Amino acid sequence: MEIGALVYPNIDQMDFTGPFEVLSRLGVRVHVMGRDMTPVRDMAGLILTPTTTLAAAPPLDVLIVPGGRGQLALVEDDQVLSFVARPVPWVLSVCTGALICGAAGLLRGRRATTHWNSFHLLPYFGAIPVDERVVIDGNLMTTAGVSAGIDGALRLAGLLCGEAVAQRIQLEIQYAPEPPFGPASEEILKAARSAVSDITTARLQTAQRAAARWGIKVA
Amino acid sequence: MEIGALVYPNIDQMDFTGPFEVLSRLGVRVHVMGRDMTPVRDMAGLILTPTTTLAAAPPLDVLIVPGGRGQLALVEDDQVLSFVARPVPWVLSVCTGALICGAAGLLRGRRATTHWNSFHLLPYFGAIPVDERVVIDGNLMTTAGVSAGIDGALRLAGLLCGEAVAQRIQLEIQYAPEPPFGPASEEILKAARSAVSDITTARLQTAQRAAARWGIKVA
Repeated sequence: MEIGALVYPNIDQMDFTGPFEVLSRLGVRVHVMGRDMTPVRDMAGLILTPTTTLAAAPPLDVLIVPGGRGQLALVEDDQVLSFVARPVPWVLSVCTGALICGAAGLLRGRRATTHWNSFHLLPYFGAIPVDERVVIDGNLMTTAGVSAGIDGALRLAGLLCGEAVAQRIQLEIQYAPEPPFGPASEEILKAARSAVSDITTARLQTAQRAAARWGIKVA
Repeated sequence: MEIGALVYPNIDQMDFTGPFEVLSRLGVRVHVMGRDMTPVRDMAGLILTPTTTLAAAPPLDVLIVPGGRGQLALVEDDQVLSFVARPVPWVLSVCTGALICGAAGLLRGRRATTHWNSFHLLPYFGAIPVDERVVIDGNLMTTAGVSAGIDGALRLAGLLCGEAVAQRIQLEIQYAPEPPFGPASEEILKAARSAVSDITTARLQTAQRAAARWGIKVA
């Protein structure tokens, strides 16, 4: 089985390292796929080093598409979009990785989710927004923000290798979380939205261009 | 504020990337501290690149000590142990990182936890085992296996910068997990233990030597 994850500058590293942690425990080496072999820094400065390039990657069984601020630069990048558009048995998008999949045309007519702050953009890619943490539609698994990639990867491990294997992985990584806080207050939510309003606007603009490109009308 | 995480060969990357994700969102650059600047591979082959060496690291406010199979090589490594033993305002251990802290003498007389498969080793380091996901005793925060580092880092973010900041981070990373499976069955647990029985035995041996070194008697 060949599993590969796209990495790029200003990726959100947990969108990638969450599924990497889970899926590498299937006993496969997860390919870290860059445009070239140059190490990239994630949004917070973590250095991630590709093990292969998109051009040299083997045919994949699972393509992982992480998100992050750098996602914005990719949604109008034909090399990346044509790579993502290739048929593969499974696509797993995490967080705003869904917007890359959308720009590649993968979301048209499909049920999908993404990070809460980009959720309103899904219709521009022709997707049917579903406000769940993990959404499966055919061979497309989309997950909500950042940490949701862990939940999705565990679900995918179960689909690929059986529930007993996925349960073993969940146990190994002791995934019985206790988030210290409940749902965010309106005040916290407003502050969080405000902190990323620049990229939210930029994402809307690229989503509108994608919609125009695919002939999608958003009410 | 200076935050640094120890990285080493055969680390379990999520023990590190979980807290990195959370604590970097405090607006600080998290130092990735290697014995030297050579990139290391985690247990599953992920390449992690240090941004500083232990020798060159600034005085830290938070020291993150991740675990993983490679932890075993560190618990009798005087350079690493003396680094970990330095007084810092906060120590956050994740998973079997607690065993490194233990070998450095940090667990003596302290309430602590670690990955479930190493939990029985805590008394060898003079710790008072507490079967919780996050355990705080003074300036020492120990967390359970792998993904528990996320929970711990969120708690620590709250202690360092206030609950509103930590709530904002929990929202940003959409940490409202839905683990697909409940508690593991006896059969799954037995298989998971069996799969790592070699390192479990080796860890016991180093724990016994640490106990002898610190003059700790285990009933």
